Amino acid sequence: MPILQAHQLRKLGREFLMAVGASEDEARLVSDLLVKANLAGHDSHGIVRTLRYVDGVLNQRIKPGAKVEVVRETPCSALLDGNWGFGQVVASKAMGLAIEKAEKSAIGAVAVFNCNHIGRLTDYALMAAEKNMIGIAFVNAGKSVAPFGGMERMLGTNPVCFAAPAGKERPFLLDIASSVVAEGKLWVRLHSKQSLPEGWILDKEGKPSRNPVDFYAGGVLLPFGGYAGHKGYGLSLVCEILCGILNGAGCSYSEEFKGGNGVFFEAINIQCFTPIEEFKERMDSLAGAMRNSKRAPGSAEILFPGDPEARMEQKRLAEGIPIPDVTWEEFTSMASRLRLNIEKVIE
Amino acid sequence: MPILQAHQLRKLGREFLMAVGASEDEARLVSDLLVKANLAGHDSHGIVRTLRYVDGVLNQRIKPGAKVEVVRETPCSALLDGNWGFGQVVASKAMGLAIEKAEKSAIGAVAVFNCNHIGRLTDYALMAAEKNMIGIAFVNAGKSVAPFGGMERMLGTNPVCFAAPAGKERPFLLDIASSVVAEGKLWVRLHSKQSLPEGWILDKEGKPSRNPVDFYAGGVLLPFGGYAGHKGYGLSLVCEILCGILNGAGCSYSEEFKGGNGVFFEAINIQCFTPIEEFKERMDSLAGAMRNSKRAPGSAEILFPGDPEARMEQKRLAEGIPIPDVTWEEFTSMASRLRLNIEKVIE
Repeated sequence: MPILQAHQLRKLGREFLMAVGASEDEARLVSDLLVKANLAGHDSHGIVRTLRYVDGVLNQRIKPGAKVEVVRETPCSALLDGNWGFGQVVASKAMGLAIEKAEKSAIGAVAVFNCNHIGRLTDYALMAAEKNMIGIAFVNAGKSVAPFGGMERMLGTNPVCFAAPAGKERPFLLDIASSVVAEGKLWVRLHSKQSLPEGWILDKEGKPSRNPVDFYAGGVLLPFGGYAGHKGYGLSLVCEILCGILNGAGCSYSEEFKGGNGVFFEAINIQCFTPIEEFKERMDSLAGAMRNSKRAPGSAEILFPGDPEARMEQKRLAEGIPIPDVTWEEFTSMASRLRLNIEKVIE
Repeated sequence: MPILQAHQLRKLGREFLMAVGASEDEARLVSDLLVKANLAGHDSHGIVRTLRYVDGVLNQRIKPGAKVEVVRETPCSALLDGNWGFGQVVASKAMGLAIEKAEKSAIGAVAVFNCNHIGRLTDYALMAAEKNMIGIAFVNAGKSVAPFGGMERMLGTNPVCFAAPAGKERPFLLDIASSVVAEGKLWVRLHSKQSLPEGWILDKEGKPSRNPVDFYAGGVLLPFGGYAGHKGYGLSLVCEILCGILNGAGCSYSEEFKGGNGVFFEAINIQCFTPIEEFKERMDSLAGAMRNSKRAPGSAEILFPGDPEARMEQKRLAEGIPIPDVTWEEFTSMASRLRLNIEKVIE
């Protein structure tokens, strides 16, 4: 299994994407964000996606250089047509616009349709946190999840994400699928031939299964919540409403849905409510209070959202990012298709 | 167990509250909303709360007639000081202001501090849905929930709520505690001497328990999510950030927190994004698609959020609302304290 440094993977992403017609700016933005996901330990949203994006450009689902168009606008809202550019490029512009509006008008809410896969919501919510705002992000996505009580793929893994700035602490960051896990986690267990914990999936007959093969053979992911699975299901529906209905992108289950992500972003300008320094001090206190509260027997520690990712980033910046052999083979074969010398690309 | 009609309970609420100095308008608003909770089957947020509110007025925690003050304001945001009026009165004004702002500016976001218990978030989110808006509501509350991996009361049951209008269907309505269940559900099982399902609470030693007594003897509720309990914990923290930190009301765990609810409301004007008729048609399709999708073996039906409450309302409008004997005794004894003739009150 090759172990590569972040800068090598960024260069790899850039060169692959530029080889199919992405501008240098587009290629840089997309690969920077993918490698951030690898550093955070979320490999399902990492550099491996380059392969799908290259395919996307080749089959004209992704249109390099596409212009984002403003369809409707008010001082604190906008509806954007992403025109099927790179999802990360479109989404960065969308959150940039939400922040700009929130700077002038306290709140900025931006919805997007015709948008390819945008990667992790984290990146956009953090853009707001870096500007002293609360960042909120919702998307819907291709159907893979059953309603509570159902067995049919009707909903996306529909994540919700919140970020907020802190003082001495890192920003608060919550980025969670409304399904028990993101689909990428099934894929990882499929490839490493591990069984699944109970309660993740049903097979195509609607029976609980612990075999990841059953998901890919027509099974379905379950909404998160365990006993309270109606709550994960409900949050997933909120994503459909904000990201499929409000923006006209179409719900995951419907024929209107054309792939990628329907997007809803919001930025809240903290200073319109409370002095930013007080906000940040309170955020630090909140994180400290949670981490230092009494642990339950058998619990090693209490984390604050974002802690696991920050630790993994430290580790991977020091030790490099392992790339599974199967992924590396795909990169090698894609490289020869694109007439790139992969050894030279990662030099 | 007395069974009363909604109008009788509304009158009871009004007369009790007016007996301690609430104006008729205040008393009517508060008791109308409490009885709506009874009709929906959420008795923990129903007329029983009148008893606590009467106590609240008597010990000067609730101040009838208090004026809500605007502390900061922009065309699409406001920070309000509730001045410890009735929570329902303050919260109705807050959502009213959010809707007014969203009518003019697409989005209205209103945060409130110094606010007593506001009841169910449902009522305020639905105010927005009735005006062709998406309504969003978050609150924090007194501490009763442990962080994921913890055993100490650090967070409120911190609910999140979303409502959206539909066409032929009822509005979409999701109103969920970020704990496995609301505390009221423990109280109900305590009084009916039922044991709890696994995974709801830990006792004061941090051990899982199925005995509701253990919660009231220093135990703690768990965040919802089951396997993914870090997700419920994360959503609870979002409530602390929006409702304890952004508005200065104080986090549930902190000494700054003075009881009641910290509040964050938002209204999104749908027409600034998409034609309202298209939105409503899509909402109807979404509800139908979910309900009619394939049921898992053993699942009786697939519901859409709000369905159980709507059914219970039909039933209770027809059959009346049962009041547990223990609650009725408390009403009777409170009535004599207030020199009210309870038989006459519910005539």
